[in-house]
Amino acid sequence: MLKISKLKRWLIAGIASFAVATSAQAADDKVYRLKLAETWPTNFPVFGDSPRNMAAMAEKMSGGRLQITIDSANKHKSPLGVFDMVRAGQYDMGHSASYYWKGKVPATMFFTTMPFGMTAPEQYAWFYYGGGMELMEKVYSEYNLMSFPGGNTGMQMGGWFQKEINTVDDLKGLKMRIPGFAGEVLAELGAKPTNIPPGEMYTALERRTIDALEWVGPSLDLRMGFHKIAPYYYTGWHEPATELQFLINKRSWDRLPEDLQEILRVSMRAASYEMYIQSYHESAENLAVIDKDYPNVQIKSFPPEVIEAVRGANTKLLTEYTEKDPLIKEILDSQAQYLKKARHWTDVSDKAYLNTIAN
Amino acid sequence: MLKISKLKRWLIAGIASFAVATSAQAADDKVYRLKLAETWPTNFPVFGDSPRNMAAMAEKMSGGRLQITIDSANKHKSPLGVFDMVRAGQYDMGHSASYYWKGKVPATMFFTTMPFGMTAPEQYAWFYYGGGMELMEKVYSEYNLMSFPGGNTGMQMGGWFQKEINTVDDLKGLKMRIPGFAGEVLAELGAKPTNIPPGEMYTALERRTIDALEWVGPSLDLRMGFHKIAPYYYTGWHEPATELQFLINKRSWDRLPEDLQEILRVSMRAASYEMYIQSYHESAENLAVIDKDYPNVQIKSFPPEVIEAVRGANTKLLTEYTEKDPLIKEILDSQAQYLKKARHWTDVSDKAYLNTIAN
Repeated sequence: MLKISKLKRWLIAGIASFAVATSAQAADDKVYRLKLAETWPTNFPVFGDSPRNMAAMAEKMSGGRLQITIDSANKHKSPLGVFDMVRAGQYDMGHSASYYWKGKVPATMFFTTMPFGMTAPEQYAWFYYGGGMELMEKVYSEYNLMSFPGGNTGMQMGGWFQKEINTVDDLKGLKMRIPGFAGEVLAELGAKPTNIPPGEMYTALERRTIDALEWVGPSLDLRMGFHKIAPYYYTGWHEPATELQFLINKRSWDRLPEDLQEILRVSMRAASYEMYIQSYHESAENLAVIDKDYPNVQIKSFPPEVIEAVRGANTKLLTEYTEKDPLIKEILDSQAQYLKKARHWTDVSDKAYLNTIAN
Repeated sequence: MLKISKLKRWLIAGIASFAVATSAQAADDKVYRLKLAETWPTNFPVFGDSPRNMAAMAEKMSGGRLQITIDSANKHKSPLGVFDMVRAGQYDMGHSASYYWKGKVPATMFFTTMPFGMTAPEQYAWFYYGGGMELMEKVYSEYNLMSFPGGNTGMQMGGWFQKEINTVDDLKGLKMRIPGFAGEVLAELGAKPTNIPPGEMYTALERRTIDALEWVGPSLDLRMGFHKIAPYYYTGWHEPATELQFLINKRSWDRLPEDLQEILRVSMRAASYEMYIQSYHESAENLAVIDKDYPNVQIKSFPPEVIEAVRGANTKLLTEYTEKDPLIKEILDSQAQYLKKARHWTDVSDKAYLNTIAN
């Protein structure tokens, strides 16, 4: 009997040493489970698809060794607490948008989109080839967090308006649901920005409690029904390339073996690009529905005079930020320099094509 | 001794059964080796980066279980034989461009880019959400091949010209290096398209053996030096979104376990999107160099009269294709319908932004 138990021990030792050999070749077989908190409510379209697409790729590519569970805001009850929860390790990952943390860390504001700033391909080029990722790391590493692009909405629309905007005076006293920095910019020109929860926006616009609101673009606006109650839909100035964000607690990342880190990195990168293309598709499809069913909706651009005034207010506020924080100055300088080069290419290529050839 | 050898056999059996158990959980540890033939020469920038980026991601994500070796055209000596070599199983994969196979299978021509057609984000949306992938499968499955987007150059430029193009008459007798379908279109208007190997293009343009040539865009044109010898650089009409191609032999794909199939699929998808952004960056950087060092280069758009004539010739030739082949008609109808919807969104978003807001 002794011999047999010795045999068993040898067998076990054999298995163990084999497991080590396997580990060197194809990592271990341990299942790693990560918990992700998203800012979005349950079943939120497009935005919510991005982390789910990421998690599905990661699970399938890892043969089930990397399992990511996603809690929506309905579950964790803290849509704007994602930064803190991931930082504290309560969640391993988050899916949100960097500009939500501007009250906490002002420099985070500049990694989502900038008013009058870069378009989506320009901004992706800045992130990955123009120094953007390095600057983002500089901002987030202090909080033990890693941040990655998490999906782009493409150009966001400037909003639904009950009245046409012809002059800067039309902005004075305008009650508009437009949160964050863009609201601060319009406030400089006399508008009254408010923040209204998504569930109350339709009624507020219908009953004229507000004169205007901005949400996303046709990809998400259609199901909100605003086209049924507001006649003017304006091209945006404030969010030309809204990039969502994957947040990861650095300790959770460090615990993963190298192959799963790469699976996670590539899944996030692919999901981010993918959301940009999905948004393009959804916007195209939904705009066609609005055109067909609500032909009286007028899609317009703000007049040059209004745009100039808004740009001036934007520049003024940004200058205040750069004067307070050298890191913000570094980020804005990097973006401005990159934008100049990238925009010249955009003007020569896509813009010239769309203006003089494609029609 | 007998006992010890028995022990060894038991140990081996134990290891074998452990290996099977591992297999069920995280696939097997067998190393799969795929050979890829690219159309490009050794060290070809941007284009050649895409399959290498793909292979590096696949290897790292699989912990070394998926190894893809890449042979450049210098090695396999058959840049335009990639379709046949992958079909025959001589290579498992290829990296090329679908329109190179138009002489063999005319319907393949429409999966790279279309003159006057979609821009890169519009075309990606068509591929992945508008039916493009399904049509591509319909064309390629007959040849035991799978085809996937392999990286986008973005807008290609219309070429370097020694003389300004002011009227349609200026195209008559114009000797231009412009291969493929675009050359056929210009021939309809009296131009003399020729194909000249890349290594001879500079000298031909310098010595005026040819009056003009098209290559790619600033991302690749800069190192060719054309800006030193030709004063006019025109925005393109013929390749608004050139998408390269990953080809896979169906049998090679079927041999892979599911997790490695997903690793390969995601690596190709991510590498394809990535090349679009890398191209954007390289074009922006290189255009800035041309601007700075060669300020006399004039970047222009062809006049409306010329564009109208070229568009007419393009439509005429495409109609001849659709009359010959119902599958080509199906592809072109799908693209035209999608373009209409996607372009309306582009006009309302990026185009309006670039024209009225961003400046």
